[in-house]
Amino acid sequence: MEHIDKIPGTFERKFNEEKKPAVSDAVIKRLPRYHRYLGDLLAEGRLRISSAELSRIMKVTASQIRQDLNCFGGFGQQGYGYNIKYLYGKISELLGVTEGYSAVIVGAGNLGRALAATRMFGRRGVSRIALFDVSEELVGSEIYGIKVLHSDNLTEFCQSEGVDIGVLTVPKEAAADIADKLVRGGVKGIWNFANMELDLSDKSVIVENIHLGDSLMKLCYEIKSSGEAKND
Amino acid sequence: MEHIDKIPGTFERKFNEEKKPAVSDAVIKRLPRYHRYLGDLLAEGRLRISSAELSRIMKVTASQIRQDLNCFGGFGQQGYGYNIKYLYGKISELLGVTEGYSAVIVGAGNLGRALAATRMFGRRGVSRIALFDVSEELVGSEIYGIKVLHSDNLTEFCQSEGVDIGVLTVPKEAAADIADKLVRGGVKGIWNFANMELDLSDKSVIVENIHLGDSLMKLCYEIKSSGEAKND
Repeated sequence: MEHIDKIPGTFERKFNEEKKPAVSDAVIKRLPRYHRYLGDLLAEGRLRISSAELSRIMKVTASQIRQDLNCFGGFGQQGYGYNIKYLYGKISELLGVTEGYSAVIVGAGNLGRALAATRMFGRRGVSRIALFDVSEELVGSEIYGIKVLHSDNLTEFCQSEGVDIGVLTVPKEAAADIADKLVRGGVKGIWNFANMELDLSDKSVIVENIHLGDSLMKLCYEIKSSGEAKND
Repeated sequence: MEHIDKIPGTFERKFNEEKKPAVSDAVIKRLPRYHRYLGDLLAEGRLRISSAELSRIMKVTASQIRQDLNCFGGFGQQGYGYNIKYLYGKISELLGVTEGYSAVIVGAGNLGRALAATRMFGRRGVSRIALFDVSEELVGSEIYGIKVLHSDNLTEFCQSEGVDIGVLTVPKEAAADIADKLVRGGVKGIWNFANMELDLSDKSVIVENIHLGDSLMKLCYEIKSSGEAKND
């Protein structure tokens, strides 16, 4: 039989009385993963889940899950586990999914196209409103329903449309220039795939780097280490 | 005037006498980034660099750099900074770049193509020997010089070619099946872009996950938090 969380009935009331629950940085870091799993469960039509079952599918201890999620409430009658929709909504709100951010993807190469095709943005409340490239062949076309504009107009477009996020998929050599255009356009954040650290004039712009090469290298290192451990 | 590291002349000799230097996990995690910067410097034809200059370009304190890199040696005459080529070689060796690993990319969609096109693999010593897909249109063709084979033959190919790494870029729905084919094919590691945790039958296979969605969500959260901080 499945273990179901027993939570004192007073907890949810107490939580709802406070306006902004304090959530630690460590929990925040783990929330995108919860959001992903809870979204999948919702898509399957599930309504409730116990910490024991969530523990099994997420491969995290049930006590970790209770620690992470109990500050959000989301418990109805005690003993029935978490209300998935409530929890998903709370986490979405906290993470900014409900802010309705807009993004442009700069660079319509393979990676830019991959990002234009994915459902990843929509699920996180981010709308992709344009692609930018310098190729005369591509400018004016549409890729997965997103129009391709010329990078020369990037700053002006970001200003007039109030773009929140710039996704940087251009080659390393062009990255600094494009990042500068995005910053002058007033974006609040840059999602950087250019495989180099950006040195922005406006330090208040948030940068999130994806270093694929570093990840590949970590994999190689672990394969090597694991082989050495076997030979010892 | 630039600060140049002064290192006791005995250090390198002492280092070279020991066969396997112990490098902490914390340092290992930072090494791919050093490898990236040192590779760029080498490509520019640079031979030596002081910890002060490396600190400036990498935006890490010089004392952190000295702590991280001094265990590798790489100092010639004292006062001349690090020997870039030596250090790059040492880090490459430690991280497995010199092992000559081979990889197959499964999924010839946008992301698979982006990975087939990048120079990222070669720089880390990994050769891409084939792409796999189920599309009859693609099978038999070449993408960026890499032949596309049918996913039905994945296990057999991995076994006969001794493939080390499987790169998983297929849709979520197909990921578990393909991962199983790779494991049965004997790969040592899986680089997983399928946006779901894999539950492998062979737990000794290393999995490195790339969760792009989680990264996008982190960016949204930080934009939101930074906006709230401004409004406070």
